[in-house]
Amino acid sequence: MKKYVIVVAGGKGLRMGGDIPKQFIPLKGKPVLMRTLEAFYAYDPQMELILVLPVDQQAYWKSLCEKYAFTLPHRIADGGETRFHSVRNGLALVGEDGLVGVHDGVRPFVSPEVIGHCYEQAVSAQAVVPVIDVVETVRRIEENGSTTTVPRDRYKLVQTPQVFTVSLLKHAYHQEYKPAFTDDASVVEALGIQVTLVKGNRENIKLTTPFDLCVAEALL
Amino acid sequence: MKKYVIVVAGGKGLRMGGDIPKQFIPLKGKPVLMRTLEAFYAYDPQMELILVLPVDQQAYWKSLCEKYAFTLPHRIADGGETRFHSVRNGLALVGEDGLVGVHDGVRPFVSPEVIGHCYEQAVSAQAVVPVIDVVETVRRIEENGSTTTVPRDRYKLVQTPQVFTVSLLKHAYHQEYKPAFTDDASVVEALGIQVTLVKGNRENIKLTTPFDLCVAEALL
Repeated sequence: MKKYVIVVAGGKGLRMGGDIPKQFIPLKGKPVLMRTLEAFYAYDPQMELILVLPVDQQAYWKSLCEKYAFTLPHRIADGGETRFHSVRNGLALVGEDGLVGVHDGVRPFVSPEVIGHCYEQAVSAQAVVPVIDVVETVRRIEENGSTTTVPRDRYKLVQTPQVFTVSLLKHAYHQEYKPAFTDDASVVEALGIQVTLVKGNRENIKLTTPFDLCVAEALL
Repeated sequence: MKKYVIVVAGGKGLRMGGDIPKQFIPLKGKPVLMRTLEAFYAYDPQMELILVLPVDQQAYWKSLCEKYAFTLPHRIADGGETRFHSVRNGLALVGEDGLVGVHDGVRPFVSPEVIGHCYEQAVSAQAVVPVIDVVETVRRIEENGSTTTVPRDRYKLVQTPQVFTVSLLKHAYHQEYKPAFTDDASVVEALGIQVTLVKGNRENIKLTTPFDLCVAEALL
């Protein structure tokens, strides 16, 4: 079955405190985004890689590919106003059949096992999302501003890749954008579709702060 | 105002996969628990340090203190059946006035600023808990087993130290144990008391898995 992954790297990286968007920061000598793309290539060299990048970062990315002699075949889609719009742009490059995963560009540590489970389960389950347990106590902020402890075993933290049948995800992204669409699962759920959870890998962190980069260096 | 901290190190550390409980594992040449106690001493050398340890680990701890020439003054309370019982045992060593914090033994990276904010605010607020934002998308598991995305800005992840007036915490721990008491805030809330949230520091992670230890080495 044909497999695609849309790697979304739309973030401006303002939280890193530097000028260079976080997806381009070199980790042990190689930009984050290259490591992310390589994770999917390592799982299946036949997978079609689609990278969504803001238009004004595409020339820089090409220069990085030359500099690092990065030759994995991939296509580029234009980043949009929000993550939703970026994914929609990536989806336009996807064919009509098969499976499509959507993955955060700044999650280079997804394991081959998690990628495998997500794509394999999506064949029958249609919509699959990797999650991890919450280790900390969780508090919920109520409407009136007060907060209460909630049972943490009732909550999961969502990672990527979120994998779907192509037909389902294309159908879902025909909807109008809503701010509640924080990930692809929420877009699909708005159609009334149930999402299947699989176990993620804890190292698959999203690199959003200098602290995360420090962790990332340690992981490599 | 008199200040106490109860450092709870009751865990058997089974999740680390080794024989040595995680609070004793050396991080860059010094056991986790010594680093944790030092964080509070560094904030205020006058603070009374109370360490709660399972009875069968106390001799080992003493031998570690000799080996590492660890001389910070602290008292030892016996670990209990659950965290609740451990904290209660620690509280028995606390006087009648002042402020008392409860802190996880395996959180050596709490910042002096966070310790300071918690103790300072507790003077007027009575019950203070440090929290951090949730970076990931959050899903809630419903009663029927289905799951839905919930707005993550309505949730916070709770850290320690959780700081209270001594009189309030002692009163709270006179209650009978309930499994819903996952942290000290939940024990205090059962009295109908509102807890005040302050900003925690993201590095203040709880070392519970080999992955966390790897992160911890990087942080040092």
